[in-house]
Parts: sequence; C-alpha cells; structure tokens
Amino acid sequence: MAAASSATALLRGPATAPLRAHPSRLPLRSHRVRFAPVRAEAAAVSMPPSTQTASPTVVDTSVNAIRFLAIDAVEKANSGHPGLPMGCAPLGHILFDEVMSYNPKNPYWFNRDRFVLSAGHGCALHYALLHLAGYDSVKEEDLKAFRQWGSRTPGHPENFETPGIEVTTGPLGQGIANAVGLALAEKHLAARFNKPGNEIIDHYTYAIVGDGCQMEGISNEACSLAGHWGLGKLIAFYDDNHISIDGNTEIAFTEDVVARFEALGWHTIWVKNGNTGYDEIRAAIEEAKSVKDKPTLIKVTTTIGYGSPNKANSYSVHGSALGAKEVNATRQNLGWPHEPFHVPEEVKKHWSQHVPVGAALEAEWNAKFAEYEKKYKEDAAELKSIISGELPIGWEKALPTYTPESPADATRNLSQQCLNAAAKTLPGLLGGSADLASSNMTLLKSFGDFQKDTPEERNVRFGVREHGMGAICNGIALHSPGLIPYCATFFVFTDYMRGAMRLSALSEAGVIYVMTHDSIGLGEDGPTHQPIEHLVSFRAMPNILMLRPADGTETAGAYKVAVENRKRPSVLALSRQKLPQLPGTSIEGVEKGGYIISDNSTGNKPDLILMATGSELEIAAKAADELRKEGKAVRVVSFVSWELFEEQSEDYKETVLPGDVSARISIEAGSTLGWERFVGNKGKSIGIDRFGASAPAGKIYKEFGLTVENVIASAKSL
Amino acid sequence: MAAASSATALLRGPATAPLRAHPSRLPLRSHRVRFAPVRAEAAAVSMPPSTQTASPTVVDTSVNAIRFLAIDAVEKANSGHPGLPMGCAPLGHILFDEVMSYNPKNPYWFNRDRFVLSAGHGCALHYALLHLAGYDSVKEEDLKAFRQWGSRTPGHPENFETPGIEVTTGPLGQGIANAVGLALAEKHLAARFNKPGNEIIDHYTYAIVGDGCQMEGISNEACSLAGHWGLGKLIAFYDDNHISIDGNTEIAFTEDVVARFEALGWHTIWVKNGNTGYDEIRAAIEEAKSVKDKPTLIKVTTTIGYGSPNKANSYSVHGSALGAKEVNATRQNLGWPHEPFHVPEEVKKHWSQHVPVGAALEAEWNAKFAEYEKKYKEDAAELKSIISGELPIGWEKALPTYTPESPADATRNLSQQCLNAAAKTLPGLLGGSADLASSNMTLLKSFGDFQKDTPEERNVRFGVREHGMGAICNGIALHSPGLIPYCATFFVFTDYMRGAMRLSALSEAGVIYVMTHDSIGLGEDGPTHQPIEHLVSFRAMPNILMLRPADGTETAGAYKVAVENRKRPSVLALSRQKLPQLPGTSIEGVEKGGYIISDNSTGNKPDLILMATGSELEIAAKAADELRKEGKAVRVVSFVSWELFEEQSEDYKETVLPGDVSARISIEAGSTLGWERFVGNKGKSIGIDRFGASAPAGKIYKEFGLTVENVIASAKSL
Repeated sequence: MAAASSATALLRGPATAPLRAHPSRLPLRSHRVRFAPVRAEAAAVSMPPSTQTASPTVVDTSVNAIRFLAIDAVEKANSGHPGLPMGCAPLGHILFDEVMSYNPKNPYWFNRDRFVLSAGHGCALHYALLHLAGYDSVKEEDLKAFRQWGSRTPGHPENFETPGIEVTTGPLGQGIANAVGLALAEKHLAARFNKPGNEIIDHYTYAIVGDGCQMEGISNEACSLAGHWGLGKLIAFYDDNHISIDGNTEIAFTEDVVARFEALGWHTIWVKNGNTGYDEIRAAIEEAKSVKDKPTLIKVTTTIGYGSPNKANSYSVHGSALGAKEVNATRQNLGWPHEPFHVPEEVKKHWSQHVPVGAALEAEWNAKFAEYEKKYKEDAAELKSIISGELPIGWEKALPTYTPESPADATRNLSQQCLNAAAKTLPGLLGGSADLASSNMTLLKSFGDFQKDTPEERNVRFGVREHGMGAICNGIALHSPGLIPYCATFFVFTDYMRGAMRLSALSEAGVIYVMTHDSIGLGEDGPTHQPIEHLVSFRAMPNILMLRPADGTETAGAYKVAVENRKRPSVLALSRQKLPQLPGTSIEGVEKGGYIISDNSTGNKPDLILMATGSELEIAAKAADELRKEGKAVRVVSFVSWELFEEQSEDYKETVLPGDVSARISIEAGSTLGWERFVGNKGKSIGIDRFGASAPAGKIYKEFGLTVENVIASAKSL
Repeated sequence: MAAASSATALLRGPATAPLRAHPSRLPLRSHRVRFAPVRAEAAAVSMPPSTQTASPTVVDTSVNAIRFLAIDAVEKANSGHPGLPMGCAPLGHILFDEVMSYNPKNPYWFNRDRFVLSAGHGCALHYALLHLAGYDSVKEEDLKAFRQWGSRTPGHPENFETPGIEVTTGPLGQGIANAVGLALAEKHLAARFNKPGNEIIDHYTYAIVGDGCQMEGISNEACSLAGHWGLGKLIAFYDDNHISIDGNTEIAFTEDVVARFEALGWHTIWVKNGNTGYDEIRAAIEEAKSVKDKPTLIKVTTTIGYGSPNKANSYSVHGSALGAKEVNATRQNLGWPHEPFHVPEEVKKHWSQHVPVGAALEAEWNAKFAEYEKKYKEDAAELKSIISGELPIGWEKALPTYTPESPADATRNLSQQCLNAAAKTLPGLLGGSADLASSNMTLLKSFGDFQKDTPEERNVRFGVREHGMGAICNGIALHSPGLIPYCATFFVFTDYMRGAMRLSALSEAGVIYVMTHDSIGLGEDGPTHQPIEHLVSFRAMPNILMLRPADGTETAGAYKVAVENRKRPSVLALSRQKLPQLPGTSIEGVEKGGYIISDNSTGNKPDLILMATGSELEIAAKAADELRKEGKAVRVVSFVSWELFEEQSEDYKETVLPGDVSARISIEAGSTLGWERFVGNKGKSIGIDRFGASAPAGKIYKEFGLTVENVIASAKSL
C-alpha cells in the first residue's frame, strides 16, 4: 500500500456502489460500507414534493394499522411487548409520516433524520412503521417472523439485523444516550462542514424514551451532557404511561421528570393527550424545532395498551401477547374488522408516497453535495471519508515508530502519541475521557474542546459519566461509518460502562476504549482502582478485541488494529507506569495477537515458553535472559490479544506454541483464569487471584510475586 | 445442629464478647461479629454529658489541624488528594466534633450515626477526623503510613481495613448510594422495632458528595429512590468546589444540581460560604434535621485546596501532593508553625472529650436496650440477631426440599420458594428487584412493600435502577451484620451494576444477587438480554461466589451457601425455563462446588466425565444415560460453583476429577473460556462463544449445539 501525501484526500478502492448494501453479517475485517456516489443525474431532479398529510380518517386508520401490526406480530410470536406500540402509535404515525426525512430504499442515506426507540422492547412499533414506510427490511413476512430464528425482526431493535434501525436498544437507557451521540455527531459535522448557503449536514435526532429509560442512571448522565452541549436538534419523547413491569410507576418512580430535565438544561413540553391529541403532538414538535440551543423533552402522556378494553393501563399489556380473546375484544373496541397483518388500501396508498419522496430527498441532497464538492473539494473529500468509512490510504504510516533505544515510557503516554498522530490523518477520530484526560492522556493537541459554542472541535469532555460516555460513543460510531470515537477512563471503571461496551460489541460499533491504569501497577489508589478480573472478562465477551500492548511499538500496533476494526470495538489496556521499549516487538506481531519476541531455541523446541502481556512482558524478557545465561532455550511470547491469536491458522499457532512443549509459564498482573488455554495442564500461571492493595506499585508487584525471581523459580520447578 | 422451634429466638454460640473486634481479615467462613452484650452496670450510667462546643479559636485551630494532617499524610506518601480535605475541613470538624453520635472505642456500636465519604479520594479528611476523635484504627503512625503496604490508611476508604470507615468508596457515586442503603436500613429497623417511648433505633446518615459523584448516574438512581422513600434522616453535603480532575466543572457539568435534587423530592439548602461560614453550616444541619419526610441535600460551596496560596481552586490540588514549597507557603498562609503531623494541645484536649462522651452514649443506649429487652423479649431477640449477624440455629431447615419426583420448574421459581422460606426464619432478609419482581420471582409473600409510609415491610421496589440497587444493598449489608439484602434483575444486566457488585466483593458485603434469565434459554428477547460471558466474568472476580444451580435441591443449596457467606456476596444464576429435578443433586454437593451426581464406573476410572452447570446439567445427565446404554462408564459432575470447588482438598478434587481421566466434556450455555481448567488439554467444551439470538429457546439451543446428540457425538470423538 503506497503512502499518500494528503492521506485524507485519497480513499481506498473504488467508490462506485451505492450505499445500499445490508451491512450486517459481512466478514468482520472487510466490512467497509462504500460511499454513495453523487450521481450526475441527481442534480437534475427538482425539489421533492412535500409530504402529503393524510386526511383525519386516514390518520386514524393508519394509527390503528400500526397498533394491529404490532398486536398481530406479538400474537403470532406469542411473545413480545404490545403495550408501547398501542400507546405510541399516534406519535409513531406523525413522526414517520409527517415529520421525518428518510429514504426507505436507502436506509443509509447520510442526511436522514435519525430515530431511536430507546424503549426497545416496543420494537413492534418501529417494525410496523418501517413496513408502512416501504423499507425492504420489514416486509409482511418479516412481521410474521417476529422474534423467530433468522428473522429480520428480532425481539429488540438490532441495527446489524434490520436496515432502518439505527442502534441496538433493549437494555434500558442506552437508546437515549445513543441518541445524544447521534445528535452530537450531527452538530459536530455540521459545524465542521456546513458552509453559508450550503448546509450539507442538517438532520434531527428523535428518540422515544420510556419510564424505564428515565429511571436508569445512564440516561441522566447522557441527558446532562446533551443539555450542557445544547444539542438543539435532539428531540426526545418521554412516553409517560405510568406503567412498568412491576406495575404502576408510583411504587418506585415519583420524581418530577420534567423538572429534572429543566435542571439539566433542556426545553420541556407536556403533551397531555398522547392517545388522540394529534395536533398537540404536532404543535409540540414544531415548538421543539424552534428551540435551537437546547434539546427538548416532550412528555407525552399515553395509555399503555391503548384500545385494549381489559388490559390497557396495566402491566399485563407491557410484555405479553394480549391473547386471542383480548385481541378480538380490542378489534371490536377499535373497530378493526381486518385479518391479522392486513393494511387497508387507503393506508397503503397514503404511505406509498414515502418511497418517491425519500428518493427525491436523497437526490436533492446528492445534488447539493455535488455543488458542495465543486466549491469545497478538500472538505468534501474529508466528509466523504467520514460518510463512507474508507480509511485514508496509508493512514497507518502516520503512527509513531519506536526502537529499543527509545526512552522508556508509560503506554498511556505512548497511546497519546498514537492518538495525536492518528487524529492528523483520520478525519473522523474524536473522543475524550470521563474527567481523566490528564491521567488517561487522551487530549488531541491540535484540537480544542467540543462544546456548545465550539462543536467543530474534537476533544469531548464527558465528565465523570462512564456509562453515558460509552453509549454516546456508540451513537457517534453508528452515525457514520467513518466516525471513529474513542473514550477513556481507568480500566477498572469499565465496570461502570460495561452495558454500553457490550452493545458496542453486539451492534458492531467500532469504539476505541482507551483504558489506562490497567493493573496493580497504578499503586497507591488501591484495590478499588486496580483491575484484576477485567482482562479475562473482556476476553470472554464476543466481538470485542482486548489488547494489552507492552511498549510503544505494540501500542502503535494496537491502534492500527483498533482503527481498522470498524465493526469490532477494541479495549486498550494501558499502563500508568513506565515500561521499556522491548527488542522484538512488532506491529505485525500485534496483528497476530500472540507472537515470539525472542527465542534462543532451535527446531521449534524451546525448553520453556514464557508468555506475558503488557507491563509483564518486560518481566518475562528479563527472566528469559537470566535463564538463557544458565543455558536454557527459552522462548518469550507476547500475548497482546487472545482473540486475534485465536483467529490465526493452526500452523501459525504451532509455530508459536508447539504442542510438544509443555513447560509454559504465563505472567500477567490479573486473574489467571483462562490462561490454562495457552499454558496447558502442566504449565503455570503467575497472576493475581485476589484484590489488590494500596501501596507503591513496585512494592505490590514484589509482594504479589510478579517478579523476575519468581518467574525463574517457577521455571525451575517445572 | 439441632432444629429450633422458634429459630429466630435462639442465636448460635455464646454472646459474650463485646462488639469491638476488628472484623477485617478474619477467615471468610467464620466471620460473624458477635453481639455486644448489654452490661448490667450500663444501666447505672447517668446521661452522658453533652458534647462541649469548642471556642471559636479552638475551632479554627482544629480545622487547620485537620487540613494539615491531610496535607502532611499526602506529602509523606507523595501521593493522594489534599484538595478536598483542605476545603471540607470546616464541615468535617462540625460533623465529627459537634453533630455526630459515635463511640471511638467501639466503631461498631449499633446506634451510631453513619458517615460516608462518597468522594472517597478525600479519605485523608476522614482519617484525620478519626484520629482526632480517638479511634484506635488511626493513630499518628497510621497517618504517617498513608497509602503504604499493610497500613490501615489506604488510598481510598476501605471498611475492611479501617474500623470507623463504614463502607468502601473511591469509585464515584457509590458512597451516596451506600448512604441511601444505610438510611433505608435505619428507617426500616426503626419502623420495625421502635416502641413508643423506646426508640432503640435512631441515627442519622451523613454523606459528603463531590462533583464527580453528582455526575455519575448511580447517584441519580439512588437519590431518586431516597426522595421516593422520604429518607428524612439522610443528610448529604454536596461539596460544590467547581473543580474536577479535568479542570473547572464548567467544561462538562453545568446542570442545576439543586433543582435536580428538588425534582427528586429532596429538601435542599445552600451554604454559600463553606470555607469559613461555620454558623451557616451549623444552621443548615439544624434545618435538615427538622425536615423529617425528605432527605436533605446541603450544597456547601467550598474552595478546593483552601489555604494553599498558589494551588487553591485549581485541579492541581485535587489529586497530587502539594510539594514541599507549596506546603510551606500554605503553612505561612494559614499561620501554622507546627511540625508535620503535630496536633496542638488545645485541639487534642478538646477532642479528647469524644472518648468519654462516646462511651457514655453507648452505655446509655445499652441501658435503653436492657429496658427494651425486658418489655419486648421477642423483638429484642430478633433485633439482636440483626445486630450481631448470628444466624438462627437451624435456619437452613426451613429451606424447601425436593426429590426427583417433584415437578419440573424454573430455578427462578424454586428460588422464590427458597426466598420465602428463608424470610420466615431470617429476620434480616429483605430486598427486591429492579422492576422485574414478577420475572425474577423475588416477592416475599408474607410482607408488603417497603415504602415511605410502610418502611417496616421487606419488599423493596428499586425501579429500573440496577447500579443504584446494588450499591443500596451494599449499604444495607454494611449497616448491620444480620441484615441480608438480596436484589434481582436479569443476569445480563449485571453489566449495569458491576461497579456495585465488585464493591460487594471487596468490602465483604454479603449481598445475594438473584440473577434470573441466565442464558439463551430466555429465548425471544434476544442477544441484548442473553448473557454469554457473564459466568466467567464473575468466576474471575475475587471474593464473590458464582452459583448456577440445576434444580430445586441445588437452588436450596445455593441459598444455604449464600446466606451463610456473610462476608462474601453470592451471584445466583437462575433459569427462566423449566428444569427437571435431577437424581443425585444435593445440598452438600453444592457446598463443595463440584460433585458427582451419577456414575457407573468403578475404581474412580470412568471412561468419560461430563460436567455441566445449571440448565445444562439435564443435558449431561441424559447424554450419560445414552452413553451408558452403549456400555460406557460415564460420570456426571455438577459444577455449580467453581470457587467452592477450588477451595476443596486436592484429595477431594481427585475423587471428582481423577487426573488419569482425560476424556472430559463440559456443557454450559455460556462462554467456554476458563473451562480448560477442568476439562484439560484433551477435553472438549461445549458452550457459546458468540452472541445469542432472538428465537424460541429450544430452537436456539438446537442451533447452538447444546443438545444431548451433540454431547454424545463429542464424546465419541474423544
């Protein structure tokens, strides 16, 4: 791959296919969504016709169609949550039929409005709306396969299964925090790229938030930031239905939500009749749009299970099928004579406008973009890279290089060098820390702070809000394939954000988690701050890369891997303490996950294999030196990422860990659990299977036996 | 052990030693703190003299003494956080010298006021106060050993290291949530046990909360509940100093905290001059005490690093030693001519009152209790059990029993039977779910809801607030050794509360985590709700028991273990789906962690060992039946708790897993990582190393190969 002088201007590979491919289930390492080209003919398309509002009768019928599509899907599956869709159908209708800009035939059209169902259990609502709007991902047969093996309509919204779904929700509170990330991305990109008279980035982010989301701490964290940042194009609907699984919310949730949001700096509106007050909903949305400097919370009071004569307004309609009898009673009650899954012609006809309207919206935007590109070539190229996710050719050559003679340094500092180097070549790299920027070493020196009035900048100040931070980063990552969010805290505090990190992994959001102070090596702060079980806990999590580099070269390698894995998040465990630059480490080695850094054996038959990660690789290397002096043939293996090693061929693995060699020792300042996989039955793991302690780091290492002497003694005992 | 007809009335073992032993570092399974006897002579002690308020000059000197003890400790360690202690010294002085009831010579005196430093990094403040007050745990030499190996003054407050510290803080937001739990416990016990004219339980809970705590979602969760419950004796001081690690809080935290707390149902007060406004602070505390039906937030505006001429009001004083030069400048500035660690005589003399006052307070209370015991024998016995942590003799006989003929049932339902049985015999058992009571099956049928006006009840409704729930339970557990809190959600949502769970483990809070829907077996809700990596992630966490019972007998065994491990929390992973009662399971087996449930081999030499946990034990048992029909000698091992198995003797382990037998297969619906420990290099693990899927449970099991057929095929391949 050739180096590029202006790396951001050159995109890898041809950019010819439209941005329509279902991106899910592609192989993990060749996943890039390609850029939607600006077609020449698009410029000729006239302004799209405005969306036609339906007549009041058709609105009523459409709202009931939404309700019954949801009811029927849940009923057929005999599993699911009909209550929210029945209550929120009017809001859903207005949003998808009257308010939102989208193109059903290209769910990935860049400038679409984003919609997040934070109360993800109500996904039958979203599926019904996508179906009516003409998305290919939710045909009638998909609604009929709700919650079934292999369907595109799983039990909670999953962006990687269903085009049209922006983010993966279900775990409560995540969606609203993702929405904050989506709105942040819009505000940031708009500030960076829009020009007077050519506002190429201009969309809203809408979210429906339930009582459950409101109780979760993550939503308070994210919404506090949304208020702080003044995300005026974020509009959240609070589905105030007074019912959660355990019954009336009065039993556990009596705070004044609207007053809380005002305290968080939001504009607030209350729609008192969310069941039939269509004009009230419309007026609230208009008002929300008119408030430009604050996000808006619209509290919409609804009746859960609206229309069900015996189950509405009760927890029994929250999470179970209504049952045939109550479905019939609801059909009677709402005057719905149709067969299951039937959509009346007038509703179909009305909604059919969204395919041409959506195509026109995109064509209009494409024309606008073509004009933009003519005037602002460099900006357009950068934006294209962000839209497509194509990494600039040779970007990785910008990463710093190290030799064994480079000064010893903490990997958190080396990480900062990598981040700053990468930020110069990757237009979509932005992020920050949960109030530990000066400890995590995550500030981008060429940029200022992303703030309400400086949203074009790239240093995000998350405050002490780890969970919100992770979920906001998921929203940023899923806004555009080329946005590469990173976020940072102490490694142990992944415990606070694990819910969001798991969703990074599941929803294929390539967030980079910069986790410093990665062991007892942080010293005096003590056991509350010292991770022990965290490495193995992420090694066990699917579709996430756990990387623990040992020096500068490996840190650069870890960044190369992390940046290139756009559909798999990475966790970088980095040291607080200084580490030497080790001979034998390499970026190529890191890409293989486990590799030999030194060896004095011949014929792939060492007497002993020492394996280690991160800060303990130095100990392994020193112990090997000593043992070699005594005539032993010792191999040292860096195990920077178990997941990457597991993906290598059996042949490669055998060259690193020959089956015949059973004398193996692992050294890692963390739980020994799992090391048996590589150390085998006859090997030994030196690690920490207790909590840490408050003392200077060197002292703890010594007391815990993480020393060259102990490795040598263990080697001799094998 | 004999059964007892009135189990709660009989306490195990002699109850003679005073409650003064340092409970830390005792062996894990014989940890009980013994009950402080009511000494006959106590009744004769007259009312304790009121605490004398110091003269204004002595107050000033005392406040500076607190500041410099903290400064000197941090300076000597060259590590720590001097800023908060310097800013909060006035508040600390008033609380510990004028407001709080405690007995320095018995930090475990039951009716003491509880104090929590939620901003735990400022622990030098707390150590300085404990030192002045006369606690034996913090002598001058302890202050000098701040943050050193083996000291009683670690880098963050640790209840298990330092008598006088109530809970372990440092991870932000945990402490205020613990304080909510402590205040809940007080309100609950007071409502249950107090009698007109004999208010045997009557104490306040105070907390100091920093900006960081306020940003964390967990604090909003817990404080929303505190408002809902009307915890009038909870008084939280918000140290409003405008500085966090990344600088001025303006960069990430501009919400109106006081308005938010009002929205949460709190009474609020603002002390504008927390630096020198002693009377303002005093008046605010008086006002807070007068508000009985709401918790109070007192925002105290302070200057971080008050007194330091060059570093006050900056982040540089937050988390680093001042340095010799600035220490000298601060000495000059505050007029403090003394040597490091010096406490002036007038301050010593004044504070010396707390030893006799504390002794008198406890004696008075003991007298009150003696009177109470005379009048209310049964209540007193129950309360004694809660205070001491002595379990009623034979309590475990109340647990339900099952036979292979008992009907198949989900372990979540069997768990409910155990919980309800245990609640009848364990006076300190209380808890609830994060809005999933009807799914987690955690309601205690003999009790109502703990609510603002019914605090004597034992079903706690946490709402959808997992992290707050866990931390509140830590507070309950650490309030009294005999309080046994349980809490519940879906197993996957431990991701939301892991920060609190790790602190249960570290701080030896014996919380019981009732985690249902423990695998893909939950079916249609899909991968966001299906745990995969969670079992191994808890197996790797120190001092926590991960238990996955397979049927009714094992569920009862899991409860026996969980209840008896009062210094080690337990996580019970329970099925949503029905499971048969298996022949061969036993409570004794569960206590060993891994044991043989069936075997047709002789001489400890089976052809094959099948091992499984929870819902997959049935699969292993059925596969064994089939293989035995083909003449194989097959052993089936239930591996309900790895941690308990690891604690058994090598001899016992050999009887279960003979070293000579390498044909071993594990079956578990979760990550295979770690099973190598028991399966060995030549064995095979059947599990799930990807995310789950949305479909009926049976379908997913089949698609993922968790079937009898697959086990048999694997067995034949070995």
